[in-house]
Amino acid sequence: MKSNPVSYQSAPAEVGVYDCEIRLKFRLLEEKKALGDREQLLELLLDAFACGADEYLEPLQVYVTAEEIPEVEASPQMRRQLIRLRNSNDLA
Amino acid sequence: MKSNPVSYQSAPAEVGVYDCEIRLKFRLLEEKKALGDREQLLELLLDAFACGADEYLEPLQVYVTAEEIPEVEASPQMRRQLIRLRNSNDLA
Repeated sequence: MKSNPVSYQSAPAEVGVYDCEIRLKFRLLEEKKALGDREQLLELLLDAFACGADEYLEPLQVYVTAEEIPEVEASPQMRRQLIRLRNSNDLA
Repeated sequence: MKSNPVSYQSAPAEVGVYDCEIRLKFRLLEEKKALGDREQLLELLLDAFACGADEYLEPLQVYVTAEEIPEVEASPQMRRQLIRLRNSNDLA
């Protein structure tokens, strides 16, 4: 922990653990054969959505949320990474 | 409409109207100030998810579906675009 409050303004960014949720509904004009590949479906739809609304895509619902959760609920891997980040910040 | 069935194999791609839904839940390590900007939240989270799972991101739920719907349910703009696509295919 930093002991000098004067350094607060320039302190390294604080990192948290977040539970995130994205729900997207949209209508899409697309080639039928392109949507046949279930493996690639998510990537294709995310790419299409990222291109924005036009005559090929009409958003119907967009819901997004990120809620901070207690660190103890994070996985061991994620908590280790969090500790690494803080240690490297303290050394900076 | 193409009258020669022999040309079917090389016919232009058929286009349909789809209702698409994406639901993503994941846990994320992120700087707290980065998530404060609600305007940029969706873009930030989609970018993070696109980078894949690692010690910064753990997917919890991935749901994706694309269901073809009758063209008459599409908006006039989308139906016009569909007609344009088909006309250009017929001319090709």
